[in-house]
Formats: sequence, structure tokens, C-alpha cells
Amino acid sequence: MSLTVFTAEFFGTMLLVLLGGGVVANVLLDKTNGRGGGPLMINFGWGLAVFAGVWVSAASGAHLNPAVTVGLWVNPDVSEFAPGVAKTLGFALIYFAAQLLGAMVGAALCFLSYKKHFDAEEDPGTKLAVFSTAPAIKAPGWNLLTEVIATFVLVFVISGFGTTPHGLGPLAVALLVVGIGASLGGPTGYAINPARDLGPRIAHALLPIRGKGGSNWSYAWIPVVGPLLGGVAGGLGAGALF
Amino acid sequence: MSLTVFTAEFFGTMLLVLLGGGVVANVLLDKTNGRGGGPLMINFGWGLAVFAGVWVSAASGAHLNPAVTVGLWVNPDVSEFAPGVAKTLGFALIYFAAQLLGAMVGAALCFLSYKKHFDAEEDPGTKLAVFSTAPAIKAPGWNLLTEVIATFVLVFVISGFGTTPHGLGPLAVALLVVGIGASLGGPTGYAINPARDLGPRIAHALLPIRGKGGSNWSYAWIPVVGPLLGGVAGGLGAGALF
Amino acid sequence: MSLTVFTAEFFGTMLLVLLGGGVVANVLLDKTNGRGGGPLMINFGWGLAVFAGVWVSAASGAHLNPAVTVGLWVNPDVSEFAPGVAKTLGFALIYFAAQLLGAMVGAALCFLSYKKHFDAEEDPGTKLAVFSTAPAIKAPGWNLLTEVIATFVLVFVISGFGTTPHGLGPLAVALLVVGIGASLGGPTGYAINPARDLGPRIAHALLPIRGKGGSNWSYAWIPVVGPLLGGVAGGLGAGALF
Amino acid sequence: MSLTVFTAEFFGTMLLVLLGGGVVANVLLDKTNGRGGGPLMINFGWGLAVFAGVWVSAASGAHLNPAVTVGLWVNPDVSEFAPGVAKTLGFALIYFAAQLLGAMVGAALCFLSYKKHFDAEEDPGTKLAVFSTAPAIKAPGWNLLTEVIATFVLVFVISGFGTTPHGLGPLAVALLVVGIGASLGGPTGYAINPARDLGPRIAHALLPIRGKGGSNWSYAWIPVVGPLLGGVAGGLGAGALF
Repeated sequence: MSLTVFTAEFFGTMLLVLLGGGVVANVLLDKTNGRGGGPLMINFGWGLAVFAGVWVSAASGAHLNPAVTVGLWVNPDVSEFAPGVAKTLGFALIYFAAQLLGAMVGAALCFLSYKKHFDAEEDPGTKLAVFSTAPAIKAPGWNLLTEVIATFVLVFVISGFGTTPHGLGPLAVALLVVGIGASLGGPTGYAINPARDLGPRIAHALLPIRGKGGSNWSYAWIPVVGPLLGGVAGGLGAGALF
Repeated sequence: MSLTVFTAEFFGTMLLVLLGGGVVANVLLDKTNGRGGGPLMINFGWGLAVFAGVWVSAASGAHLNPAVTVGLWVNPDVSEFAPGVAKTLGFALIYFAAQLLGAMVGAALCFLSYKKHFDAEEDPGTKLAVFSTAPAIKAPGWNLLTEVIATFVLVFVISGFGTTPHGLGPLAVALLVVGIGASLGGPTGYAINPARDLGPRIAHALLPIRGKGGSNWSYAWIPVVGPLLGGVAGGLGAGALF
Repeated sequence: MSLTVFTAEFFGTMLLVLLGGGVVANVLLDKTNGRGGGPLMINFGWGLAVFAGVWVSAASGAHLNPAVTVGLWVNPDVSEFAPGVAKTLGFALIYFAAQLLGAMVGAALCFLSYKKHFDAEEDPGTKLAVFSTAPAIKAPGWNLLTEVIATFVLVFVISGFGTTPHGLGPLAVALLVVGIGASLGGPTGYAINPARDLGPRIAHALLPIRGKGGSNWSYAWIPVVGPLLGGVAGGLGAGALF
Repeated sequence: MSLTVFTAEFFGTMLLVLLGGGVVANVLLDKTNGRGGGPLMINFGWGLAVFAGVWVSAASGAHLNPAVTVGLWVNPDVSEFAPGVAKTLGFALIYFAAQLLGAMVGAALCFLSYKKHFDAEEDPGTKLAVFSTAPAIKAPGWNLLTEVIATFVLVFVISGFGTTPHGLGPLAVALLVVGIGASLGGPTGYAINPARDLGPRIAHALLPIRGKGGSNWSYAWIPVVGPLLGGVAGGLGAGALF
């Protein structure tokens, strides 16, 4: 079961970051077909990246996000991380490791897919933007708050999926992420997932990207801490409401 | 039951306005990632704001809108506001109060999420647009009529959701709102919901927004009265047709 | 049953044209919120206009389009226009009349919703575009062929909806129309529905629209004849394939 | 059964290429209504082209793509190409032939639909782009890798559709293709389907297109070999994971 959880989360998060980073690369990097596609294209791209990832990670419950894992952990109405997967520290660490490693590999595959466009792109900040988020206006406290609120919405609403009959399957969370991105992505680029931001940032630091700049480590804690706090808030809120 | 209805409507409308106001902030305020994303992005943002809100308010039937509550009230084919919730004045007032308060809190959370961008934005009218609607061409009679027609469509079509088998769950109303916004939002910004417009307008008046202008109270009655009339028309029309 | 069919088709087609014309008005007319929203917004607007119309016309099978009625008529695999509605000339005429009248009323409601923007708009051709289609390059034979092909796709694919289990309900045809518009709307504006084009054209001729030009009657036969031929081809093709 | 498979795949792939080529024509060719609609419109157009094709090809399992056929072939968990269709070389060749011929006919119908706009368009490269893909930056090894990765995602995720209950029907693969296009279409235009690229390229060479240039045969092997390799990888990966 541990291996099943690991592989499901690993491949799901890998696809999430490959496609999510990919749409940013397509819209921002030089000479791509999607250059200038605009923010709505990025929002749909990230939402459908979640969509792809969820289909391959049913075995682990498709968390793909430490904030979701934490949100389920603290929610007293939820008895397991997934069917047959107990809420233990051991399993939580397996989720976190698989998510982080999957995100790193996904970022590397994204880099390989867009290799020539990374070479063609001159701005180091644009290259980093394919990997990790950055604030539109740097203001740590407010940036943190935005990430907390956006991730609260994600985890709180996901927890309501079981309260209404529907046949949307993975489309429910995909469209929720499209909506959160369009609505709350303006200030910080909606990390709303520590693995999605930290894994690619590590990959950015390690990969031989021509003309890359720094990995902006001074900001790196915000898209980790903010989503974790938001996930806790969402899980507790869901436990109280539903 | 009263408390359940209240909390469900409160949190649902809170999410609706947080995400709905958020997409306007993202597209319009200065220095955001979504700036210039265009009207289709706003339409999808508001539709998916409804989507998010509906998931958490199953217990109250997910009205999230006094015009929907009123439309159900006048529809003789509908026997309850929600399963177990009788169509009484008392419950109607609980719906209205929860919707209005939820909208106010949602608007405040939206303001906090975009605080630095409200500071950066210079135009007071743009700041107000994140909270409440305004007419593209001021003409009270015609503006009122547009709101009546758009809300009629909303309530009339929602009443048809039960006539066709489907597994769309909350996506049905979400896409209907995307469509109404794209099609009928041109003249007045499609309030189609008194709480969605009045609650944030009150919040705009109360919140310490740097450099804000007036809250345009002279227009405020139109996005309240128009949607209520449209909701009545939609409920009566649905009662006659279906 | 005749009255039920009539009212279902009437209100469904009314909503279809109100919202479909509305998105064109929003994107094209002067001073609207949606001005410049672009062709994808128009495609989604028309698709979701179909979505809205279908929800209220379950009783008649939601044709909303003479080309669909004709396509079902010629398809030997289809035994009824809708459950309990025999494939007779009498019922076909009821469908056609309700569709045409519904489209006329929908166009009038669209005009009322955007009245001040029709006044503000200076170009008569743009005003007409809210009502009816026109070719991007006038070439009757080729324009006709494009309408035949696009409507063939519509009716042929609709006929396949029953071959695959799904829970999409009215979303299936809505997204099909989004796709046909995006893909085949370039040359003629995808009438693909005689009632959707002729009804609003009559309304354009009758309504007191300030500064309107002619209703382009020389083109009017193409978006009637083309879709009817395409509907026949689609119905016969579906009868042969499925 | 051979004929059923052939006709299902033929018409499905015909619709896929008619609508997929159509959206490129609409966005790129001169004087169309959709000109300048942007990359997200192209992504939705192609995704909904798949949507249309899948509805009419249920009898063959709706491969519509040799990479999918090959991916199922190598996946040990999959016992048949479709219910009642054995995984034999003979059936595989029927799939390939129907897909290629369907793509050619679809490309010809697309050309006919946009005939006057092909005449109006001056750039031969733009005309070819309606038919087949080309790299944004020519670099055979990297272009091949991008196609391998993108097609791996397609086939790998499709193989997971059965692991999660849902009622999306053909919408699942349609949205997956929207996502792959938005995310991984930047460098090579996401052929991800040998028939979709080679069939139209042959059609481009054969059709009497005014002012056409060459069919870029030097690139033609990449969108054939890349997707086949990616399909094998996806099928083997799915066999190992699920």
C-alpha cells in the first residue's frame, strides 16, 4: 500500500507540474505557439493539469498537494487519507515525499519539453516563472495572507464535493482550480500547493538552464507556509461546517 | 435547521463574492497577474465563483441569491426552499440575512487578498467595480430592464434543471452564470443577485480602502429591485411552464 | 401535447436567441462591458445559449432548430420527434412555428436588453450582426457549402449522443456548438439553424432600431437552405452509420 | 466487425480533423470571423474536435489516433481494442487505414469550408498550418522529444479514465486534449497523433490550393514517430502503474 500511494502521488504530481509549468512556458517563453495567450489560458492550463494528474492517482485519493493532505489530516470527519490508507505520520510523509519528488521530475520534463524556448528566452525572471510563483507586489505578510485564503478555499470546497450528487469526477477539482486561479491568482500566482512551488524551485536550482538567474529563495517559504496554513484552516472549517 | 440554513448560505455566498470580486480585481486592478485578462475571464471567474459556493451550501439548497429564494417562493410547483426547509417568511429572512452577511464578509476577504493592488490602483471607480456593479451607460429604466431580463433567465432556467437527467451537479448553474454574464452582462455588469451587489457595496462603504471614492448609492436600488422582479418573473414563468 | 411542444420549443428558442444575440451585442456594440471580448467569447456565449434553451425544452426534445427537426425526420432510426410526439407533418409545422416565433421574441428581448448600446452604436452592419449572420467573404455557393457542412456536423454528432454513456445532459450539445462555432464559424458566422437566423432577421426588419440599415435579405436564403440541407445530410448519415 | 471499426474510426477522425483544422483556419486565415482569436481558442477548438469525433466512433472505442491504438496494443492490462475487437495486426491495420483516410477527407472538407479564405490568404506557411504541424523552433531531436512527452501524457492519462467513477463520457478526453495543447503545444503544435498530421499533409500535397507552398516533408516524420513512441511509452507506463 505504501508503494501504491507513493507511485500514485508521484505520477499525479509529476503530470500536474509538467502541464502546469508547461502552460506558463507556452504563454511566457519566447517564440512559442502560445505566447501572449493571456491569464485565462494559464488558469485553464493549470486546472486541466490538475485534471490530468487526478486521473492517474485514484489509488492515493489524488491529494497531489501537501495542503490537501494536511487539510484531510486535521478534519475530524475524515477517517482515512484514502480508502485503506490510515491517517498516520508515516503515510503523511510518504505523501509529502512523493508529491515533492513528482513535482521535481515534472518540472524537469517541462524544461526538456521547452528546452529550445528556455534557450531563446532572455529574461531570467520569466524562466523562473515557469517553475515557481513570485508576488506581483512583494509584501510578505499580504502575500502570505493571499496564499492562506486561496488555499483555504481549495481545501474547504473540496471537502464539500461529497455533499452533492454529481458525475464530474476529476473535473470538479479541476474547475475549482481554474476558478481560484482566475479569482485569487492576481497577487501571488496561486501556489496553493507547497510541493508545486518548492519542488520546481529545487529543480530550477539544479537544472542546467542556460542564462538562469537565482531561484528567489527569499520568497520560497511563503508558498509553503501559506498553503499549509490555508489547508489546516480549510480542513478545520470543513470539519465544523459539514 | 435554521442555523444549518444560515451557515450554508453564509459560507456559500461568502465564497461566491470572494471569488467573484476576486476575478474582477485580478482583471482590473493595477499590477496583478491577470490584468487585461478580458471579459471572458471575468465571466468564467464569476461562474466558477458560483460553482465554489454551491458545493458548500447543499444543506440550504444553495440559493446564494435573494432572487432565487424569491423565485422559489412564488413558484407553486416548489413546496420547500430546500429539503426540510419550509417556505415561510421566517426562513426567507434567514436566507436573506445569511446571503447579505456572507456577501459582506466575502467582499472583505477579497479586499484583504488584493490589499496591495487596491493600494496601487489609482482610479476610485475601478476599486468600486471590484465590489459592485455599475451601468456602462446610465439609464435607470433600461438598466433595470436588463437586470430583470437577465435574472428572469437565471431563475427560469434553474427551475428547469430537474426536468432533464444529468450528472453536472453544481456545474449546471455555474455554466448558466457564465452564459448569462457573457450574453447579458454588457449593459449593467449582471448583478442578477441583490446580495451580491448590496453586500459588497456596504462593505465598500465601511472598509478602510485607500483613496476610495463614493459607493454610488444612487444606482444601488437597481441591482436590488431588478433581480427581485426578475426572480419573481422567473419563478412564476417556471411554475406556468414546467 | 401540441401545446406542450409549442411552448417548450418557443421558450427554448427564445432563450437561445436572447443569449446568443446577447453575446454578439456584448462583444460588438459600442460601450458594453464585453466589447472586444473576441471570437472565443462569442463561441462560448452561443454554446451556453443552447445550454440555457435546452434546459427548458425537455418536453419537446429540445430541437430549437428546424435543421434538427428535419434531421430527425429523415433518420429512419428515430421513431418520434420526442417521447410521445409522432413524426408527422403537423408536428413538424408546430416545431417550425414555435422555433421561428421564439427566435423573433428572443431577438426582441435582446434588443431591449441592449437598447442604449444599439443607440450608441453607429455602424448599421454591426447592429444587424447582433440579429443575423453575414458572410465574411460573400460567395453564395461557398457560403452555402460551409453552412451545409457545419450543420451536417451538428446533426450527425447529436445523433451519436445516445451511443455512449454519459451524464453531460444539455452540456453535450452546448459544447458541440462551441466547437462548431470555433472551428467552422469563420466564413459565415455559423447560422446552422434557419430559425436562429430568419427569426431575428424578421425582428430586425420590424423593430424600431435607431439608425438601422437594411436586413440583407439577399443573403437570407443561405442560412435557411444550407442548414436544412445539412440537417438532412446529418440525419441520413446518422441513420446509415449508427 | 471490420467494417464497423473502419467506418467508426473513419468518420470520427474525419470530424476530428475537419474541426481541428477548422479552428486553425478560423484563427489564422485572412478575413475570417475568428481571426486573431488566439491560442486558447485553438486549444478549445482541437479539444472539442476530439469531443465531436468520439461521439460518432463508440463502436471502435474511439481511438482516432494510431498512437492510442499502439498504446492499447502494448498495454498488457488491455485485452481488446474495443469490445469484441481483438488485438490483432489485422485490426490494427484497419484502425490505421481508417484514421489516415478519415484525416485526409476531414482536411479536404476543412479546405472546402474555408475555400475563399485560403484564396484570400497570402502566406503559404499559414495555409499549411491549417493542415499540419510545424516546429516553432526547428530542432529535430528536441521537437521529437516534445511530441513523445505530450503523447505519453495523452495515452497514459486516457488509460486512467477507468479508475475513477465519472459521467463525463467523451468530455474527459476532450478536456485532456485542451490541457495538453495549452501546456505542451508551444514548441511543436502538439500533433500527438500521426494520422492527424500525416493525413492532412498528404491532402495538402494533393489538393488544388491556390498559392500553396511545399508540404514540409522534411519535418513530416517527427509528428509520426514522436507520437508512436509516446503512445508506446504511455501504454507501457499505464500497464505498469494501474
